[in-house]
Amino acid sequence: MTTQLECLDEHRCFGGRQLRYRHRSESVDGDMTFSIFLPPGNEDTAMPVLWWLSGLTCTDQNFVQKAGAQRKAAELGLIIVCPDTSPRDAGVPGEDDRYDLGSGAGFYVDATQDPWSEHYRMYDYVTRELPSVIREHFNVAQAQSISGHSMGGHGALVCALKNPGKYASVSAFSPIVNPTECQWGVDAFQTYLGEDRASWSEYDACELVRKNTARQPLLVEQGEADNFLDEQLKPDRLEAVCQELDHPLTLNMRPGYDHSYFFIASFIDEHLDYHARHLSGA
Amino acid sequence: MTTQLECLDEHRCFGGRQLRYRHRSESVDGDMTFSIFLPPGNEDTAMPVLWWLSGLTCTDQNFVQKAGAQRKAAELGLIIVCPDTSPRDAGVPGEDDRYDLGSGAGFYVDATQDPWSEHYRMYDYVTRELPSVIREHFNVAQAQSISGHSMGGHGALVCALKNPGKYASVSAFSPIVNPTECQWGVDAFQTYLGEDRASWSEYDACELVRKNTARQPLLVEQGEADNFLDEQLKPDRLEAVCQELDHPLTLNMRPGYDHSYFFIASFIDEHLDYHARHLSGA
Repeated sequence: MTTQLECLDEHRCFGGRQLRYRHRSESVDGDMTFSIFLPPGNEDTAMPVLWWLSGLTCTDQNFVQKAGAQRKAAELGLIIVCPDTSPRDAGVPGEDDRYDLGSGAGFYVDATQDPWSEHYRMYDYVTRELPSVIREHFNVAQAQSISGHSMGGHGALVCALKNPGKYASVSAFSPIVNPTECQWGVDAFQTYLGEDRASWSEYDACELVRKNTARQPLLVEQGEADNFLDEQLKPDRLEAVCQELDHPLTLNMRPGYDHSYFFIASFIDEHLDYHARHLSGA
Repeated sequence: MTTQLECLDEHRCFGGRQLRYRHRSESVDGDMTFSIFLPPGNEDTAMPVLWWLSGLTCTDQNFVQKAGAQRKAAELGLIIVCPDTSPRDAGVPGEDDRYDLGSGAGFYVDATQDPWSEHYRMYDYVTRELPSVIREHFNVAQAQSISGHSMGGHGALVCALKNPGKYASVSAFSPIVNPTECQWGVDAFQTYLGEDRASWSEYDACELVRKNTARQPLLVEQGEADNFLDEQLKPDRLEAVCQELDHPLTLNMRPGYDHSYFFIASFIDEHLDYHARHLSGA
């Protein structure tokens, strides 16, 4: 069955096209919006996809408008797909009450708890349904990589660690690496997954490194002046478990940088180069 | 007398700093906000300033967040100052009623008409007061250049054409080149300057080219898919008068590009290189 895409926005950008679409999602049983950058030449040549998962309160638009990634993506021939961060207007009571739960805060998990489980299935959406929609409608190569910021950095790490071989490379900016041990994650996992903590570990990068055997390298960028560093992000937890298990990790601590898109913009080119190298060898 | 600057925001960005300040402005008799990017090394080395004037509905933030200019500015050692586009909360009746008049729409003129003339003096602000504030507080070199978008492209052209020798170079994206002959400009000039059309020509790039003798080259970038091209921007008017008077103009018409920041981002590096070349020779 063909998914219908409704084009919401289109801009020429660095010789390519920056597009925004809405479609009916089976995963979340509702409408979802995503943005996609198509580099110049993509009409004739299939190109690999980089998935970008955004953070709390973001939509599919933040990265598109603020990261300045299109210049390098156009040069490298990299399609970038930005999903939204949650279902919207799903009708779940309280979905708009908190910035860190519900709308804008899907946490890339498949909720199992009422009343969230019917719609909040962002893991299924970003790993299965949306890739299939993208393959159906765009000229994409087989190879894909994944990255993201904060909650979306957590999402990127989790998607890659749970699916060895699926992504040619994975990176993250300021990721929540150990959500089962920070307030953002505990609140979200209690809400979406319930009290059974065993189920939480399925969505925790530090826990998944313990179960993982593929040992795909992780690239993590972290600002040292990030307000959320000590309470929520805790990259030292990831560093410790990677060291313990000999899991390859490059953790770039950047003095003076904070949690904002100014940080992402400053280092996104390096990450795009990294992914392009892995994608071309994939 | 030292102007007090209140820092509203600070981010490390491409090794430099992206800052936002509020200060009391004498020109507009009220508080004004501006953003400034300081490249790495500016602590030790005075650097030239590029002024960026934004368009209708914008604040000092749009360019900062969406143009992706900091990467190249950091590389070139170029300070970028983005003023706001009008006074805010000036208390002028109706100032927030229209997107193209009042707040966000100062048009870079010094209003002469009640009730606007007390506050809407953006020409004085961007050409005299703010440069003096910047010199007082930051490590800036003598040389400066100017650019802008749409209403701000108009502003950049007007500031340069009225002040031969003041700016090492001038460029504009999608500028309103002939405001006395388009609806946006006519409405604004009637409101701010009154019915005496002679006073309007002081703020119209096409008219100023006629009076100008310095013949400083103009660089204009224009998307061909810009919704405002035929009704408001009319670059052919500028082309015609420049041709008639042998005024040097480079008008880059870009197929497929629209009026958005995706267009600006796509070509801002070329403009920054252009300004840096002129600034280093200035």
